[in-house]
Amino acid sequence: MDYSSVVVLGAGSWGTALGLVLTSNGHSVKLWMRRKEQYDLIIKTGKNGKYLPGIEIPKDIQLYTDIIDAIKDTKIILLTVPTQKIREVIKTIKPFIKPDQIIVNAAKGIEQKSQLRISQIMQEELPSQPYAVLSGPSHAEEVARNMPTTVVVASEKREIAETIQDVFMTSTFRVYTNPDVAGVELGGALKNVIAFGAGIADGLGFGDNARAALMTRGIREIARLGKAMGADIATFAGLSGIGDLIVTCTSMHSRNRRAGILIGKGKNLEETLKEIGMVVEGITTTNVAYELAIKHGIEMPITEEIYKVIYEGRDPKDAVTNLMSRSRKHEMEEIVDMNNVEW
Amino acid sequence: MDYSSVVVLGAGSWGTALGLVLTSNGHSVKLWMRRKEQYDLIIKTGKNGKYLPGIEIPKDIQLYTDIIDAIKDTKIILLTVPTQKIREVIKTIKPFIKPDQIIVNAAKGIEQKSQLRISQIMQEELPSQPYAVLSGPSHAEEVARNMPTTVVVASEKREIAETIQDVFMTSTFRVYTNPDVAGVELGGALKNVIAFGAGIADGLGFGDNARAALMTRGIREIARLGKAMGADIATFAGLSGIGDLIVTCTSMHSRNRRAGILIGKGKNLEETLKEIGMVVEGITTTNVAYELAIKHGIEMPITEEIYKVIYEGRDPKDAVTNLMSRSRKHEMEEIVDMNNVEW
Repeated sequence: MDYSSVVVLGAGSWGTALGLVLTSNGHSVKLWMRRKEQYDLIIKTGKNGKYLPGIEIPKDIQLYTDIIDAIKDTKIILLTVPTQKIREVIKTIKPFIKPDQIIVNAAKGIEQKSQLRISQIMQEELPSQPYAVLSGPSHAEEVARNMPTTVVVASEKREIAETIQDVFMTSTFRVYTNPDVAGVELGGALKNVIAFGAGIADGLGFGDNARAALMTRGIREIARLGKAMGADIATFAGLSGIGDLIVTCTSMHSRNRRAGILIGKGKNLEETLKEIGMVVEGITTTNVAYELAIKHGIEMPITEEIYKVIYEGRDPKDAVTNLMSRSRKHEMEEIVDMNNVEW
Repeated sequence: MDYSSVVVLGAGSWGTALGLVLTSNGHSVKLWMRRKEQYDLIIKTGKNGKYLPGIEIPKDIQLYTDIIDAIKDTKIILLTVPTQKIREVIKTIKPFIKPDQIIVNAAKGIEQKSQLRISQIMQEELPSQPYAVLSGPSHAEEVARNMPTTVVVASEKREIAETIQDVFMTSTFRVYTNPDVAGVELGGALKNVIAFGAGIADGLGFGDNARAALMTRGIREIARLGKAMGADIATFAGLSGIGDLIVTCTSMHSRNRRAGILIGKGKNLEETLKEIGMVVEGITTTNVAYELAIKHGIEMPITEEIYKVIYEGRDPKDAVTNLMSRSRKHEMEEIVDMNNVEW
């Protein structure tokens, strides 16, 4: 089978950057976008406007605004549209997709209404379609500039994961495989809650110590929830777990972190969203995570405090005080409680 | 037993900051330093010069230059002297120490000549003395300013760990306990190798993606070595493992990272050490870690490349290329290989 033809659905910064990786790796790449204005701008300027400023889009990349036309004769369909739009996109291509076309999802998030992961949406819409998810610490801006990046591809079928690994792997884009689809998807989605919290801490004027503690304890509560939802706890110690969390919490590229900073500085939610001017995934994800924690009976103290700051107007300072003054704990017992195995 | 009296041996930034925590927590604190000039400066200015600029040293803290005098009538002896000096300090106090005085080590490193951890030095010098180690993501500058910080105290004896937990715990200094002394000590020592490597990557102009990948893969190879050396692999996923690694790799406070940046920018080792002007623990620790990896038959690709850059003049760019072009891997298999349990 020939995997040389890939269509990227979604021409934001991430889709475009992955298109560049694939082109440089010798694949024939089609890039689909919904808006005609964006299409025209790329044709006219050779660049993708505000999404990836300063980066040339090679002429080899074929641009499309007709999604049915775009997916035709491709072996791989790479999804980079916003999570809340994915079901709609899948429904649109569903009647035209061939059974051997592999769907690779590179979007991060949980469908808000259904609380489902992307692979679960696939299960509902296209249950027998080959599927993999690509995730990890990977700012698009850096990937587009060929700066060294390492990601994970997960699929229930090992041969699919290895195929996608080969398709993407270059000298600066290193790909690991992992069979744990649920863990990789949950890590990518839930990290935004902690990134938002890290922003709050920064906004309050706290330092590196607090942020590192938040990340370390944060990935642990994410792992606890993940385990309850069928993920492998080990995945959260990997690139798509703590790796992605680190990159998101320490970079100003993250909208989630920037939104948290504003909240920490005393702005309310409405002012914050207005100032960011784009979707802040972590805010809706916090709501989903909080509900999932209750549903699965998992203790998630950081998520709970962030939830109360966002949705119940709790003072961020009180939230930190609550986290710091919980009863004294044994680090290892908590782990043993949660797993009955080493973590 | 009354634990209200603590002596801090070593008046660098870390020792002084911990002295401040203990004082604010109502303990009677003695601070010992070797140099009379430093003593005079603190008496004269009420501050600890370049170690903790801008921070007032409370008059309640009693200053000592005579170590025998200092340890007298204290329940806890807190070690914050440089690792390579610890054995000498222990030998000095050995004839005067009482059996119920608890040694708490807050220094991070491995004794170069013997390749021993601090608790192993204690085992040789004072085998029946109560011992605990305190570690975690904790820049002294932030601790001294009461910025929220979270650390781990490890002791083989749970009651000792809990005693030390109570002694230190304040509303901004949160302490977890952990029985894994080896893991906590190794995490604190070996993170400096990865911090140095993160600096090299930064110096080469790489970005957040590369640094996050380096940290994620780095803690994993540290955990592999730790496991072989008797540590509990779970500890490396905690505050004294990945937590401390994060804070060290993302902050300019770290000398190890700053030294790596200079190497990455093309300076040689001699120029780098001259410019930093202080001990760069990560450079000697890299040597120790490299030898330990060989001795225990553990694959540590990142440590090996950093070793070759420092000691064999390998071009840092080639080191990164080597790391990025290793044969393709399965993230989970590596873990399973290493543990036979979930991580």
